[in-house]
Amino acid sequence: MREQPLPERIEKTAISEIETPALLLDPVVMDRNIDRMRAAVASLGVAFRPHVKTAKSLAVVRRMTGGVPGPITVSTLREAEVFADAGYTDILYAVGVTPNKVARAQRLRGRGVDLKLIVDNADAATAIAAAGDPADPLPVLVEVDSDGHRAGVAPSDAAALLGIAARLRGGATLCGLLTHAGASYGATSHAEIRRYADQERDALLSAAAILREAGHPVETLSVGSTPTALFATDLSGITEVRAGVFVFFDLVMAGIDVCRVEDIALSVLASVIAVQPDRGRFLVDAGWSALSRDRGTARQAVDQGYGLVCDATGRPCPDLIVLEANQEHGVVGLRPGSTNILPKVAVGDLVRILPNHACATAGQHAAYRLIDSVRRTVTGSWPRFGGW
Amino acid sequence: MREQPLPERIEKTAISEIETPALLLDPVVMDRNIDRMRAAVASLGVAFRPHVKTAKSLAVVRRMTGGVPGPITVSTLREAEVFADAGYTDILYAVGVTPNKVARAQRLRGRGVDLKLIVDNADAATAIAAAGDPADPLPVLVEVDSDGHRAGVAPSDAAALLGIAARLRGGATLCGLLTHAGASYGATSHAEIRRYADQERDALLSAAAILREAGHPVETLSVGSTPTALFATDLSGITEVRAGVFVFFDLVMAGIDVCRVEDIALSVLASVIAVQPDRGRFLVDAGWSALSRDRGTARQAVDQGYGLVCDATGRPCPDLIVLEANQEHGVVGLRPGSTNILPKVAVGDLVRILPNHACATAGQHAAYRLIDSVRRTVTGSWPRFGGW
Repeated sequence: MREQPLPERIEKTAISEIETPALLLDPVVMDRNIDRMRAAVASLGVAFRPHVKTAKSLAVVRRMTGGVPGPITVSTLREAEVFADAGYTDILYAVGVTPNKVARAQRLRGRGVDLKLIVDNADAATAIAAAGDPADPLPVLVEVDSDGHRAGVAPSDAAALLGIAARLRGGATLCGLLTHAGASYGATSHAEIRRYADQERDALLSAAAILREAGHPVETLSVGSTPTALFATDLSGITEVRAGVFVFFDLVMAGIDVCRVEDIALSVLASVIAVQPDRGRFLVDAGWSALSRDRGTARQAVDQGYGLVCDATGRPCPDLIVLEANQEHGVVGLRPGSTNILPKVAVGDLVRILPNHACATAGQHAAYRLIDSVRRTVTGSWPRFGGW
Repeated sequence: MREQPLPERIEKTAISEIETPALLLDPVVMDRNIDRMRAAVASLGVAFRPHVKTAKSLAVVRRMTGGVPGPITVSTLREAEVFADAGYTDILYAVGVTPNKVARAQRLRGRGVDLKLIVDNADAATAIAAAGDPADPLPVLVEVDSDGHRAGVAPSDAAALLGIAARLRGGATLCGLLTHAGASYGATSHAEIRRYADQERDALLSAAAILREAGHPVETLSVGSTPTALFATDLSGITEVRAGVFVFFDLVMAGIDVCRVEDIALSVLASVIAVQPDRGRFLVDAGWSALSRDRGTARQAVDQGYGLVCDATGRPCPDLIVLEANQEHGVVGLRPGSTNILPKVAVGDLVRILPNHACATAGQHAAYRLIDSVRRTVTGSWPRFGGW
């Protein structure tokens, strides 16, 4: 049984009575997503280190880590500090660290948090080693590039790997390797996702062999992204998997068939401001300040605009999307080329908008409103935080 | 003399010593922008009602209103409440109101705030009139569409105008007309902006004539956008002008020649995480969580990616832009087709990134760090707020 964190505020209001816009979270759907991921990772025989950057919520992450504090991945030192305050002691900061953040990282270690950093170049390694405390050296994972996506050392680049390893002494110490198949978000089949998962594994095994051959200890081999974590079949030699967006899922993940639309746990509740039947559209009170400007589905087969529009119960309206977003206005209409008919709506009607990118949409809000989909009520509220 | 609001926190730190990412605000540039706008509006002989949605900061807006509370425009009731708490009593809520917000608006009026609402359809007018308090009817401006941009009644649509006016009784009362030339953001010349300014004026005068002819009082005629407010030459018959983004300006405004790049008062300070010379790019620690996902210059002649990159002193590096943005990573490189050379940078170097859209970028941060550009110091910090 999973421990149920106490909601910070208990309510029992009909969804139809709350003020809009509001970020709704269905905890039943979320728990199902968490169970699916934890089962997938467990079946691979590796540890799970969920990423907190999507949720930025103690209550949500507590469920991701199985009801008690466990290993987590963070994208900011603020996340590390908030979770350290809540009792999390095994934290991987998975963005290449800059010299101006090392002192703060060191302070977290001084509080008894096993904070680990990542680097992908010798200059950063040198800076960390110089700024870190030799009495409590900062453990560092070297980032490896498994897919040409963003950052990391090429897995076969022995000179770069050994150059970084040589600099990780004094205030820093090498503790492992990390990779993230960000390119898996662009995959078009489960087979392609599996290939990315294999690439993550193989890239780390190659790089580890080079370092171990030279006598460097490489304990942690950390891979992951939501797609590869769910579709990997063999992670032999890997020690841990990271993933974050699976907790809520979103239209980008549905667009590559990593989840179904009904697995998306997050939506933005909005009210109709005006109906413009002659223009085939209506306006809602959720603009980019509520939805974010993320257009992650623009490159996919089905472009969902600024979000797929559902009725107030959460059932998607075919082809109905947010076509344009201003700060506090969303323009809703049918997807270009659609043969569907614009649903009849009236001023004040409620809709729910599914996010392209859960991290970005959640990031626009200060709290999750928890919903009971069966009783159509809001049952509580979980705060979330931002900043660095 | 303008009253100087006390910064909430006084500091004197070298810009090079603060942690990144951080939102920098140059108050000297901001004050110049405010002076320019206030002079432009004064020369037109109309009242100024600045929009607070860009800044969402008491300290900034206090300067926009000339050092004392004055008329303001808001985009959320939260903005209205925060400014009401600070002594602002003349507030226009310039987003079509939904029925679930009327009670809250009425409570603000009960506190002595002259809050005005807008509508552009009979259903919304009916809902406000029904929910409002006949003992203190909600003053309502009818939104008129002057440019086909988003919302509003066509200025010659007598049936629609009179239909709305007829419903504004009981809990609501007609007090004026409003329009916003959002399409002026797409103008390509000052002459075209002037035409939008004329359209704003003419649309309201046409609609006012119809309503006045039928015996309806139309006191307030409210127009505005940053481009039209700055380039209008004749606002005869108009009573007030609204504008917001001018306070900071941004690359979208520079792209239509409404300001110069050096008039942009806002930038995001970021550190170099990694240099990838073979790929002609480097990574910084400002991703979309610091920059926003706004791509407002994508449709302009010069696409600035996710922002134009400057050196640490704020001088733009020719053709250097943020090509891609992940949550906490920005990928910086030369604009496609550029013949410039990638500047030499090292890990830990600082850059400043100018925003496409000031409202969106500022919205990602909890505070403005005030800078002294001459001494290259951070001199204080002004909080900002979000939410609804």
